[in-house]
Amino acid sequence: MIKLTSFLIPPGFRVGDLPSGEKSSIQDIEGITVGHIQLIKGEGKLKVGQGPVRTGITMINPSSENVFQNPLTCSAFIANGYGKTAGLAQIKELGVLETPIFLTSTMAVGRVWEGAARFVFQQNPHLAVEGQTINPLVGECNDGYLNDLYGGHIQSRHVMDVARELSSDLVKGGSEGAGTGMVAFGYKGGIGNSSRIIDYNGCRFTLGCLVLANFGERKSLRINGIPVGKDLPTWEKNKNDGSIMVILATDIPLDNRQLQRICQRAPLGLGLTGSVLGHGSGDFVLAFSTTNIRSRTGELIYMSKKVREKGEFLNKVFQGVVEAVAQAVYDALLQAETMTGRDNRRVEALPVEKIMEILQGG
Amino acid sequence: MIKLTSFLIPPGFRVGDLPSGEKSSIQDIEGITVGHIQLIKGEGKLKVGQGPVRTGITMINPSSENVFQNPLTCSAFIANGYGKTAGLAQIKELGVLETPIFLTSTMAVGRVWEGAARFVFQQNPHLAVEGQTINPLVGECNDGYLNDLYGGHIQSRHVMDVARELSSDLVKGGSEGAGTGMVAFGYKGGIGNSSRIIDYNGCRFTLGCLVLANFGERKSLRINGIPVGKDLPTWEKNKNDGSIMVILATDIPLDNRQLQRICQRAPLGLGLTGSVLGHGSGDFVLAFSTTNIRSRTGELIYMSKKVREKGEFLNKVFQGVVEAVAQAVYDALLQAETMTGRDNRRVEALPVEKIMEILQGG
Amino acid sequence: MIKLTSFLIPPGFRVGDLPSGEKSSIQDIEGITVGHIQLIKGEGKLKVGQGPVRTGITMINPSSENVFQNPLTCSAFIANGYGKTAGLAQIKELGVLETPIFLTSTMAVGRVWEGAARFVFQQNPHLAVEGQTINPLVGECNDGYLNDLYGGHIQSRHVMDVARELSSDLVKGGSEGAGTGMVAFGYKGGIGNSSRIIDYNGCRFTLGCLVLANFGERKSLRINGIPVGKDLPTWEKNKNDGSIMVILATDIPLDNRQLQRICQRAPLGLGLTGSVLGHGSGDFVLAFSTTNIRSRTGELIYMSKKVREKGEFLNKVFQGVVEAVAQAVYDALLQAETMTGRDNRRVEALPVEKIMEILQGG
Amino acid sequence: MIKLTSFLIPPGFRVGDLPSGEKSSIQDIEGITVGHIQLIKGEGKLKVGQGPVRTGITMINPSSENVFQNPLTCSAFIANGYGKTAGLAQIKELGVLETPIFLTSTMAVGRVWEGAARFVFQQNPHLAVEGQTINPLVGECNDGYLNDLYGGHIQSRHVMDVARELSSDLVKGGSEGAGTGMVAFGYKGGIGNSSRIIDYNGCRFTLGCLVLANFGERKSLRINGIPVGKDLPTWEKNKNDGSIMVILATDIPLDNRQLQRICQRAPLGLGLTGSVLGHGSGDFVLAFSTTNIRSRTGELIYMSKKVREKGEFLNKVFQGVVEAVAQAVYDALLQAETMTGRDNRRVEALPVEKIMEILQGG
Repeated sequence: MIKLTSFLIPPGFRVGDLPSGEKSSIQDIEGITVGHIQLIKGEGKLKVGQGPVRTGITMINPSSENVFQNPLTCSAFIANGYGKTAGLAQIKELGVLETPIFLTSTMAVGRVWEGAARFVFQQNPHLAVEGQTINPLVGECNDGYLNDLYGGHIQSRHVMDVARELSSDLVKGGSEGAGTGMVAFGYKGGIGNSSRIIDYNGCRFTLGCLVLANFGERKSLRINGIPVGKDLPTWEKNKNDGSIMVILATDIPLDNRQLQRICQRAPLGLGLTGSVLGHGSGDFVLAFSTTNIRSRTGELIYMSKKVREKGEFLNKVFQGVVEAVAQAVYDALLQAETMTGRDNRRVEALPVEKIMEILQGG
Repeated sequence: MIKLTSFLIPPGFRVGDLPSGEKSSIQDIEGITVGHIQLIKGEGKLKVGQGPVRTGITMINPSSENVFQNPLTCSAFIANGYGKTAGLAQIKELGVLETPIFLTSTMAVGRVWEGAARFVFQQNPHLAVEGQTINPLVGECNDGYLNDLYGGHIQSRHVMDVARELSSDLVKGGSEGAGTGMVAFGYKGGIGNSSRIIDYNGCRFTLGCLVLANFGERKSLRINGIPVGKDLPTWEKNKNDGSIMVILATDIPLDNRQLQRICQRAPLGLGLTGSVLGHGSGDFVLAFSTTNIRSRTGELIYMSKKVREKGEFLNKVFQGVVEAVAQAVYDALLQAETMTGRDNRRVEALPVEKIMEILQGG
Repeated sequence: MIKLTSFLIPPGFRVGDLPSGEKSSIQDIEGITVGHIQLIKGEGKLKVGQGPVRTGITMINPSSENVFQNPLTCSAFIANGYGKTAGLAQIKELGVLETPIFLTSTMAVGRVWEGAARFVFQQNPHLAVEGQTINPLVGECNDGYLNDLYGGHIQSRHVMDVARELSSDLVKGGSEGAGTGMVAFGYKGGIGNSSRIIDYNGCRFTLGCLVLANFGERKSLRINGIPVGKDLPTWEKNKNDGSIMVILATDIPLDNRQLQRICQRAPLGLGLTGSVLGHGSGDFVLAFSTTNIRSRTGELIYMSKKVREKGEFLNKVFQGVVEAVAQAVYDALLQAETMTGRDNRRVEALPVEKIMEILQGG
Repeated sequence: MIKLTSFLIPPGFRVGDLPSGEKSSIQDIEGITVGHIQLIKGEGKLKVGQGPVRTGITMINPSSENVFQNPLTCSAFIANGYGKTAGLAQIKELGVLETPIFLTSTMAVGRVWEGAARFVFQQNPHLAVEGQTINPLVGECNDGYLNDLYGGHIQSRHVMDVARELSSDLVKGGSEGAGTGMVAFGYKGGIGNSSRIIDYNGCRFTLGCLVLANFGERKSLRINGIPVGKDLPTWEKNKNDGSIMVILATDIPLDNRQLQRICQRAPLGLGLTGSVLGHGSGDFVLAFSTTNIRSRTGELIYMSKKVREKGEFLNKVFQGVVEAVAQAVYDALLQAETMTGRDNRRVEALPVEKIMEILQGG
């Protein structure tokens, strides 16, 4: 896992006008750590179970606390539900995230769920005595264009491996972790990050975003809204139109209803990149707040920070969401490098200079 | 009410690449008629009850049948629920539109509801005998920047007036009907129309859209995704960030679940115009199919057309929705003319040439 | 409007074991006032516009403050959406009740909406200047079996009349107010009240319920779950299976997500009375908390009371909801008196002694 | 796995008056098969990983076709989302069930998901070539009161074992399969079945129900609505208030919206058994229709059976749902036998005679 201190955004790829945080990453929020593991093995023709393997896991740990004991306020929105993300029903009901977030290859959801449950159980062995359950949050995208999707290469033990990679330093995106085999807009996709700073009346908050980008048709690609895709060479090889996982984090003490509103703005950011929430795309959004962590024990009635429903403030936050989501998609495309996978399929990195030409010359 | 045969789209304002129907209007769908009435009276300082009045009603009749007896398959989606649209709970439960659609000024919802109920009752007087109810669909946006919002100028009897204006000919948009007092992106907004043709394997379908556009900050305006607003003169007078009603119609025989999916793509079209689904914006989407009209009487089990869930087809439809929604917003802006209203507030028409310059020179 | 100090529950009609508040009413919650007006006029054959009139309005004022300036945390759940209740979209989005609650006859929703808006506007005339809107909450049931549903007898000015009737003293239920023309389980229905006390670890909270009961088939009637209906004389005259509005109030400082959970338990109370959420029944539930009133002005970040998600406590509250909802339905049936209305239709009061016999004798 | 030809319902335990199908089971619907496997091993004190083991899997195969190639119309409703059921997002979006249904122990969801995916993949190996995914439907309840919840005893290969047990003959309920370690109302719970026949105008339809019952406090137990629990010996040992999975199947050609309405009636059946949808209870409902199976290939537009929205018919269906759900819970309680598990905890079978005494003598 490569660690960075910054990542440059080429001219024309900057979305909107809110300032970015230092790392342009979900890691700009205090306490959030990210880790990747990557499984790359074999070449040539697909033999299920043997490879080629182009896959991985990305883990987002939302706080430095024991997350199960100190769950974070959390909401979700499903923009298009053609996906297998596990854990959302309980998040909707109870309004909390009680495990780290795991992103991986679609058909590995079961094994990563198992590994995630075991990981949290090791930190909280008393759960066995009490007969209490754990609700792992496992998101996925389909990396079957490059990867041996049904080969079972990701094992539940890999969850322990990715947990050891957690870092608060900026970690590389693109084809790292769950992004290894992902394709977006006919180019190499994967993990992208971004952040936006919300200044309001002397308060400063941060909104961070991490995406697993595996969606979009090349001809529809828009950069900051501008339709560049129609001027790019056609690419119609991937019939399954992929998916995207959007993880939003903030230090604003939003409650569940407010986080739900945050989530519902994320699709607009996808729209600025050219998405139409394609039929086969699982477009899932999760948003959590790192403030107002809810301890499981304590008095029945307690005092908690709340955010007054001020339009001027919320509109800035909503703008931040739209900007951050689109920016994180570009980050994924910009960081990912050309990859060859199953059946010698080759997915090119985004032709940045060509796109800059289109943007300028148009 | 002015009738037209076509309306030209200036260069740069065309969204996407699907072909448009003949009228570029929701009226491209067979059987749909539209009517407007406009109430304009008085000038100068606001005196509640006296004016100035800048308001109206727009009516969309979804079929040439008695709609109550032959309701249309219909779904809705609320992208941001800061609004007063009446009738949605029953549409969600029963999946049908059983009255024409009425759009008006926010604080007139009660009176237009009453008028709409009376209108449908006159066509179906047997409802009194049977003690059966009617579910009027009344949408609204807040025209209080230009209009005497609380003056009670729209009366329930005006519903009969607007019904007499129904026409299958293309009717003018912009500041007509409910659009009279609306403001979008700091320019004069109101009613906009568009349509897209979906060709697939020898089948040809039409998707039409009518919006009541009353939303958006000027600095955020995007034309076909391109951020032109930052180069326009600032305009920060309207503190309430407005709303939009999106009405989608199609002759594709979609069922309720599929129409729901249609609705959920509409916000992406708004995103391409610069919306962030602002806090104070009631962003409501309604979609209905004019095929497979559901008669109230007949056999329990009957045969009905269905659309197979083919990604290639649905993606075209979703693209059509995104394009049509953005296009209808531009249509509203392009057709609306400068209007002066309460407290001598003046809202300019969109400076088309200035924007074309930005788009070209940018 | 008759005022009472208590109302006796006959043996067998008591639901569950949580204690009731002093008034067995939603008025057991501090600050809540209730008022009714009743319109009764004419006899004999229905002539639309002339009568017979058997209708009314019930108003629930949730606090002694200016509700618009100090809205209450509020959620809603639609168990069966065959109804016309107005105002729910905004409540879901913003999570607050900003007007009193009005219950009335279905086809009067438009006029009562208008009256409610005018009532709130009179208290808040600055809204015209600011161009800000109001979101009236108007619920309804169909009283068309006894009443001239389409006669337009309820006028918007009647809202001012019912507001003058508001009282913190226990007001009579049954055929008062909106309950005037309602029918439940083939007997005279209408307004019912109940309350439950939640004691937990030295904290004492109250949960109150008011229903407008207009639903249910006689043969399905259950008293505290016991199926007595099959032993009652058949009554199949009312083909439209009616509706119920359930209003839940509490002084527990629940947030929107928690109030949503409260709402979702209400249908189980209806089930104990014999409801199957009939197709034609608009079964709407609203729940608000009188603590943590949200002022529109003040600091962006503030401290607010929250309830920790303790199962033992919440289960008591959920039990209270189920008990209170069923109890309020019985209260409506027990208080309502025989009424004759349109076309000389006669709806009998509940035969309490006959039912007590069934309950005892089996 | 024991096979039966019928199962007697003791007097007083019969819910409602609609006739039951021949097997009183979800298997009364043509084509549905059910299988169980049970894992019982060890005694005495809990040692995580060693036992005692009291768990299993139940599999419901919705049709005799390749389910993935011929998915069934399906909807779901979450009455209380404290649960880990996987697969619901995609069912909501696409409206189809594309795999058999698997029920198991909570912390085995990951492994059963993996096994289910592998099972479906073996039947459809072309999915690897196409890079297409599978959406396994895995429901669960927490059997941690009797079982070594975190021991990992259920393996993904057990899915193949349970598939071999599928039978169209009536299979035993109670402590079989996923029901092995379940507790309901302080008695031994588990798998229960029921069915109801819907006759309407010469049409005959069947509605079947299978539950995994693991919920409820003993003192709240109601039999057909009658509160018998307060007269039973107290039992307060299980602090976690469990869950229930409700699977509804029918041969009525309902669409997604209509199946959704079916689902929303299920909680009322739970209410008749004494549930308040407890905080810690994952109460999930799934409903599918075995008619109008949707083939993945074929013409874009095709004809499909639909059910007209007739109140008289739908009310019978809704009544059937409420009856069938309560009946299936009693079936689980009546079939389950006393079981001793971890830490020598003993859960008694329902004291049927004692309850019949209460019902009669009460």
